[in-house]
Amino acid sequence: MSQEFSVTFVDDATGRERRAVIGSADSSILDAARAAGVDIAATCGERGRCRSCRVKVLNGHIPPATVQDSIQLGHDEVHERFRLACQTRVIDDCTIMAMPPKAESGHQLLAAGAGPAASAATIDSGVEKHVVRARAPVEEHHQSSDIEEILGELGNRVDPEVPLAVVRKVPSALRKHRGTLTVTAFDRRIIDIEAGDTSEHMYGMAFDIGTTSIVGSLVDLETGEQLAAVGSVNPQAVYGGDLMSRIAYAQFDERKLTTLRARALTSINDFIKEACGEAGVSPSHVYKIVFAGNTCMHHVFLGVDVSYVGLAPYAPVVRESLVIPAGELPLKSAPNAMVCFLPIVAGFVGADTVAAMLATRIFESDGVRVLVDIGTNGEVVMGSKDRLMACSAPAGPALEGGQIKHGMRGAVGAIERVDLDDDVHCGVIGDTAPIGICGSGLIDAVAKMLDAGVLNGMGRMRNTGLHTLPQALRDRLVGSKEDRAFVLVWGEHAGTNDDISLTQLDVRQFQLAKGAIFAGILMLQEVMDVPDERIDELLLCGGFGNYINIESAVRVRLLPALPVEKITYVGNAAHLGAQIALLSETERQRAGEIAKRVEHVALATRTEFQAIFVNAMNLEEDESLVVSL
Amino acid sequence: MSQEFSVTFVDDATGRERRAVIGSADSSILDAARAAGVDIAATCGERGRCRSCRVKVLNGHIPPATVQDSIQLGHDEVHERFRLACQTRVIDDCTIMAMPPKAESGHQLLAAGAGPAASAATIDSGVEKHVVRARAPVEEHHQSSDIEEILGELGNRVDPEVPLAVVRKVPSALRKHRGTLTVTAFDRRIIDIEAGDTSEHMYGMAFDIGTTSIVGSLVDLETGEQLAAVGSVNPQAVYGGDLMSRIAYAQFDERKLTTLRARALTSINDFIKEACGEAGVSPSHVYKIVFAGNTCMHHVFLGVDVSYVGLAPYAPVVRESLVIPAGELPLKSAPNAMVCFLPIVAGFVGADTVAAMLATRIFESDGVRVLVDIGTNGEVVMGSKDRLMACSAPAGPALEGGQIKHGMRGAVGAIERVDLDDDVHCGVIGDTAPIGICGSGLIDAVAKMLDAGVLNGMGRMRNTGLHTLPQALRDRLVGSKEDRAFVLVWGEHAGTNDDISLTQLDVRQFQLAKGAIFAGILMLQEVMDVPDERIDELLLCGGFGNYINIESAVRVRLLPALPVEKITYVGNAAHLGAQIALLSETERQRAGEIAKRVEHVALATRTEFQAIFVNAMNLEEDESLVVSL
Repeated sequence: MSQEFSVTFVDDATGRERRAVIGSADSSILDAARAAGVDIAATCGERGRCRSCRVKVLNGHIPPATVQDSIQLGHDEVHERFRLACQTRVIDDCTIMAMPPKAESGHQLLAAGAGPAASAATIDSGVEKHVVRARAPVEEHHQSSDIEEILGELGNRVDPEVPLAVVRKVPSALRKHRGTLTVTAFDRRIIDIEAGDTSEHMYGMAFDIGTTSIVGSLVDLETGEQLAAVGSVNPQAVYGGDLMSRIAYAQFDERKLTTLRARALTSINDFIKEACGEAGVSPSHVYKIVFAGNTCMHHVFLGVDVSYVGLAPYAPVVRESLVIPAGELPLKSAPNAMVCFLPIVAGFVGADTVAAMLATRIFESDGVRVLVDIGTNGEVVMGSKDRLMACSAPAGPALEGGQIKHGMRGAVGAIERVDLDDDVHCGVIGDTAPIGICGSGLIDAVAKMLDAGVLNGMGRMRNTGLHTLPQALRDRLVGSKEDRAFVLVWGEHAGTNDDISLTQLDVRQFQLAKGAIFAGILMLQEVMDVPDERIDELLLCGGFGNYINIESAVRVRLLPALPVEKITYVGNAAHLGAQIALLSETERQRAGEIAKRVEHVALATRTEFQAIFVNAMNLEEDESLVVSL
Repeated sequence: MSQEFSVTFVDDATGRERRAVIGSADSSILDAARAAGVDIAATCGERGRCRSCRVKVLNGHIPPATVQDSIQLGHDEVHERFRLACQTRVIDDCTIMAMPPKAESGHQLLAAGAGPAASAATIDSGVEKHVVRARAPVEEHHQSSDIEEILGELGNRVDPEVPLAVVRKVPSALRKHRGTLTVTAFDRRIIDIEAGDTSEHMYGMAFDIGTTSIVGSLVDLETGEQLAAVGSVNPQAVYGGDLMSRIAYAQFDERKLTTLRARALTSINDFIKEACGEAGVSPSHVYKIVFAGNTCMHHVFLGVDVSYVGLAPYAPVVRESLVIPAGELPLKSAPNAMVCFLPIVAGFVGADTVAAMLATRIFESDGVRVLVDIGTNGEVVMGSKDRLMACSAPAGPALEGGQIKHGMRGAVGAIERVDLDDDVHCGVIGDTAPIGICGSGLIDAVAKMLDAGVLNGMGRMRNTGLHTLPQALRDRLVGSKEDRAFVLVWGEHAGTNDDISLTQLDVRQFQLAKGAIFAGILMLQEVMDVPDERIDELLLCGGFGNYINIESAVRVRLLPALPVEKITYVGNAAHLGAQIALLSETERQRAGEIAKRVEHVALATRTEFQAIFVNAMNLEEDESLVVSL
């Protein structure tokens, strides 16, 4: 959708306003400032490497913080709606106050690991480059070896063990460039030795392997700058759209596990090449790769049997953080990388959830916060610095358009917004003729149908008293009492020439899906004794949350009845968490601590869950209502 | 050669003697005892696993100690000519005293690492098996993983990191045999997890990869018993017979290095399968493999460039002990093994020499001992517990029959012994018609020709005063003054129908070869200030030393003029050293210390070496003689 947004800049000192109207196509706040004639410094050249363009967004929606925002501004400032103007896309009408840091405007941050105290997160990726000048052994009596000559120059800056793959590079490297060598270490362990001074080149990648999609990024490990972003649908999806069908495919069949694994490996290898190509860096200079992903994706990627992850009690084979040389996986595209897998909590609370916790800092929150990742499997984390609980709710594919008669993914042609007054009005992605409905449209449709009285609180389409409905809506209620449907778009307006409708069965599938997630939230509220009033903030994460109409999500009881300003979309928090662990070993270690700390609540084993779930499926809270499917 | 030996047994208490005459074909002293009606207990069933058949060989040649001898009796007793009767082949007429250990005759030694103090070398291979009973996670709330359940049962007996290859085995292993599992660790690092109790099966292999041949053995890591022996010509030999030509082949050509490496890997993989097949054990139960080998073989096997090992100053790329998982090499035949490479001293004093030092205990000797490995490259180690020096002497292939007109390896048809009286009498391997002469025959021939006056002290064949020679010898001196040769076997008696003769050039080649080795010994004597009288013992090792007539070797100045009883053949000490390091981590660590301690003397860089070498080429010591080539 091409849209225009009005961006108003307020002068910090004078209170004077300037305004610009800009197209939404990837314009940053900095672009808007220039259009408005407002002078904001961009000392680092819009690379997110300094704090000179720091602004505060006074109102209007803003995208989730990028890793550059997090690094330069810290989590507290990000939470208070500070952003880097160069990194922040305009996605709504908004009001901005330019607030460059007073003392150190434009200071080049984080060079060579010596960031100033103003930087909330310091970079300590664990990767270090040591440039030394060594000589090949020259004296026959002097007992030495190539490696000893190099280690001698390094002193105790690295561990003296040299992996075989690196040993093989030593003789030629030592005899080029007059003995100038760059020795790269991760966590003091030597991972590469190469001729010449390559200290300028130190990169890493962060990936979130989701059931549906894979996203990744290439990051400069010295500056924290994101150099390239990659992503696609998970190529394993052809073997099962949701988690359980993916597991079922590979269950007790090693060959099929290998098939899934090969797809993921190929995909990641390609992404590494793609990102490095885009950024113009050598894949051999990628030294650290951090993976987040749910337990199934994690295990499959490692070639670990997922058969028992799919059977009660759904136990993972391994939960600990793992660090594995790329060659062992093998990830051939980044031959020198150490590959770090974030830890897992439980079979259905995976490394992606741990990464999201890391990114959202829920573990250090004073008040109670709730983290909700809506997907075929919804994960819910609730708590604060005092206590954290997590559960997984098997929502199924309805919210991604699966098992819905006209359901589809959030792509061009999908109904993503629905309004009902006297008739139905649909917003369609790409402003084209609609061809189906995606998850956000589904939530919106159900909410509005509920408001209009087309659906009752139990999710049943109206059969009686139709005369109270506007004629147009009444006309859209088609089919027999047993086979009801509500037409959203008549065939003549649809891209398919067929009516696009929601069936009673679709609504039931939706109720099952949203009910599972809402039940997860309710369950944790019950176990932790947290009424709605005690929830300070609800954070929506994952690719899907971005498109949800939050009012509608609350209306249909997918989310608790919080004031909407307490509900924030925080972006792909799993990927952001992986980036944070990529840039900071302290944070990567912290992920291990979080994974140990968080308590897993297994919904299905709780006796009270059935009742909570049945209640949660209702679209309106009413103790007297019992859904009948 | 089928021979008969007379074996006399002396009763320890009464002094009474019993005698048996036995064929030499692999008869043990125990076999001889039975033939003589002497009762020697063999409690362990002739497997070298106990001390019940301990004997002392009062006189007669005996073979070098086996690893079982070393383990059960210790190095001191072995040195005092104690042996296990079941392990010791009869190779000479000999007199034996049965001397079973008094208190604990027949005690089953070394079970489960609790050998009695009487055992000089205790087994501590570093490999441990832990049998545990673990259960798969059964409770969904209880946050756990398969691996945590297993580690929980192991307590702190192992390090908690589990390699990826082992992680992959966990889910199925945990769910067989009601959770009974065997966890195998090397140096506390988990290397395998398998279903059931396999604690009975714990094996290792030791290899010496020589330029010419590869020998190996499969050993029970619990008992020290050798279960199988394997060996062959090094399949790389087609790419160059001696070390320098092998290096030259692969120099600055990665593809050729890969070719050499593949040959060695294939060969070792085959040996592992062969040995395990022979012993009826699973290669998956081979957990530790120790390699000895010269620097070139070591580097090539690891895929490390040897280009610079072949150029002054001949520095190795790496000298440290290395421990590498088999999968990384890859040695696919023993997928669970940790592969240990013994350390290196210098480019031409390799891990084989370190292993030989370990086996011969030269590093703890009170008096000065000399270790000589005769090969295309001869290594000499001299010293005691106070100081150790080593050098490498490039002998070339003459002593292995190379560059000798009728030279051949020590195989059937090779002249291996020569006597001269009025005529020439040759001993031929296999008692067949001779077809050539091997190294030991060459040494013998030159020594006897020198005695008979056919050669003079400078190695020149006699041209004048021929009338003083017996007629038959005079007839054998053929050719012109410039093109002299000495016929050892006339064509009608030879397997080839051609005369088998030694040419003047052959003698020169021999002098260069033996001169190099002798110069190495002389050089170390000079540097360490050790006259012949201070040498307590000279130990000959390597495959070749076995066949040398020691008197002849001293006569031609290949070895110093020591009393022959001070010169002992100790077998393939490099392989024995690898076996010792296989059975004992203490000893493997010691190898590292030895390699650091021994001082390398680079012969070619010593100004005095040229003069010493020229002198050493002479067959008789005479300061006034200067060889003219």
